[in-house]
Amino acid sequence: MPGPGAVPGEGPGVPAPELLARARLLVAPGLSASLVRELERIAGRGAKQLGAGGAADGPLLTADGPLLCVGAVLPDALRNERLLWFHSVNAGTDPLLAAGPWPAGALLTRTVGRMGERIAQYVLGWVLAECQAVPEYVAQHARAEWRRLPTELVAGQTALVYGTGRIGGAVAGLLRSCGVRTMGVGRTARTGAAPAGFDRVIGAEADPDAEAEELAGARWVVAALPLTGATEGFFGAGRFAAMRGATFVNVGRGATVDPVALEGALRGGGVRRAVLDVLPEEPAAPGAPVWRLPRTVITSHSAGITADEDVAQDFAACWEAVAAGRRPELAVDTGRGY
Amino acid sequence: MPGPGAVPGEGPGVPAPELLARARLLVAPGLSASLVRELERIAGRGAKQLGAGGAADGPLLTADGPLLCVGAVLPDALRNERLLWFHSVNAGTDPLLAAGPWPAGALLTRTVGRMGERIAQYVLGWVLAECQAVPEYVAQHARAEWRRLPTELVAGQTALVYGTGRIGGAVAGLLRSCGVRTMGVGRTARTGAAPAGFDRVIGAEADPDAEAEELAGARWVVAALPLTGATEGFFGAGRFAAMRGATFVNVGRGATVDPVALEGALRGGGVRRAVLDVLPEEPAAPGAPVWRLPRTVITSHSAGITADEDVAQDFAACWEAVAAGRRPELAVDTGRGY
Repeated sequence: MPGPGAVPGEGPGVPAPELLARARLLVAPGLSASLVRELERIAGRGAKQLGAGGAADGPLLTADGPLLCVGAVLPDALRNERLLWFHSVNAGTDPLLAAGPWPAGALLTRTVGRMGERIAQYVLGWVLAECQAVPEYVAQHARAEWRRLPTELVAGQTALVYGTGRIGGAVAGLLRSCGVRTMGVGRTARTGAAPAGFDRVIGAEADPDAEAEELAGARWVVAALPLTGATEGFFGAGRFAAMRGATFVNVGRGATVDPVALEGALRGGGVRRAVLDVLPEEPAAPGAPVWRLPRTVITSHSAGITADEDVAQDFAACWEAVAAGRRPELAVDTGRGY
Repeated sequence: MPGPGAVPGEGPGVPAPELLARARLLVAPGLSASLVRELERIAGRGAKQLGAGGAADGPLLTADGPLLCVGAVLPDALRNERLLWFHSVNAGTDPLLAAGPWPAGALLTRTVGRMGERIAQYVLGWVLAECQAVPEYVAQHARAEWRRLPTELVAGQTALVYGTGRIGGAVAGLLRSCGVRTMGVGRTARTGAAPAGFDRVIGAEADPDAEAEELAGARWVVAALPLTGATEGFFGAGRFAAMRGATFVNVGRGATVDPVALEGALRGGGVRRAVLDVLPEEPAAPGAPVWRLPRTVITSHSAGITADEDVAQDFAACWEAVAAGRRPELAVDTGRGY
């Protein structure tokens, strides 16, 4: 059922332009001063900076009128029907949705920015660094040793990319520019031509045999899945057992991987190396067992950072859509989770 | 003047097909048995393996008839007019030409194979590894430390690539697939459209001001020059002084760089980092000063390795041309040096 601020016929969570016109602009803690100025310019009104605790914001939050908030985290005090729209400065919105029930009728939009391009360069960078033995040459140089180390030409190898949306497609497209054969895996089968970047796309549910065959032949397995009820632990014992020496790169969400299954595959050799940008629990504590996984590098959730310019650009695009009564392209289906 | 085995009108060093038909096939030491079998198949005759010293080859070399040799090094005993054709298993032929006068009329061909593709992936691999802080993340992982390190999006940056032939063009083309602006520098100016892979090409001799300006703006300077009389010490104090924090990658020849000037630029900061695949003296001894250059990695001349399949494929292409009386595309101008 549409929330109180929704436009009939536009589905839940698209605020009426007249509500947007009188909404207060709030910014959550942690945004830079220059970004806040840019958001004020886009919204055509001054912003109220929320405090870290929220107590000092009491008077504001008990005043009348619809609220629009930009930030990484939605304060609990805003989880009510006065929230018209929350714009996330991040692409992954699972922490926002997991922190409590989403306010009925509130629009949730997110920042993607150049994330596809950034994550694609991250993946290709780690792929080529392994092919070119970058860490090994750095270590050898420190020993003042002249020795040719084995390297690999990535052209002709196969990469299996899980997730065939904007991120997965950007990853596949860049790998393909180096001559890599790119296979996409979506949850469900697609009909028609493969999306841009992919040589072919298969559905994990529709064709598990084809997926297992591709896992066995893949040199690279790239996980770029959002975290939803359907993807938690998606990379489990079955998928890891099908790999035959692939390097596993996770740029999606840490909880899509069963850590015990990954460790077994690393120890058994089914997984050659692992590059993990994301973990089920972040940040990893210094004593966490994940640091002791063999042949693994953890990169502290840095692959898909969003810059201030990304936030401003995507917020402006969303603003333009909402002001015109349209659903923004960057709106999140809060039921589905992405 | 054409040598004794040359076809009139085809220029020096293109052997007459009838001489090729009765030439003995010699292979220099160091080739794998499977490659030798493949060369025998292409030439349609058995191969004679030369010894490392050459003394045992005396009877063979004093016998009559033209000689065809495949290898990395031309034995001194073959540096005479009986040599019809030498096919190098490497792309760089400067050591062959520097070791003694080239026998009059002898054809010299070389193996390029997938070298352009290999060197391009090497360059992009080291570029992206620096952008993604691969060595720093590997070191940080070893300390079990979760911390986001600064990374760079390579898109929008400028790379200046010296050498606009097959290798330089392949390097530029791959960098461009990551959104890099690619400037080529050739010794002389070109007219017409820039060659594939480049946004623009300038001539170092024709337009030194434009070159200096590009050096100042470049994030990456890639050297892919052959070694000739004109390129020795080409990267000297002047060019390094024009750089403003570029990373310098040398995949050409070590002697095109003045090592004292490079060291000064590294210490002064004009060169941010150096990745040197090649050195003036290879292999570098453990005590060589080059190992102590700051922020430098040496990769032991591994960027453009040739695989057996590359040698066989390029030798076959040359064979086909020579047998038809044509000059092979992979023929080296032994006067010019490449």
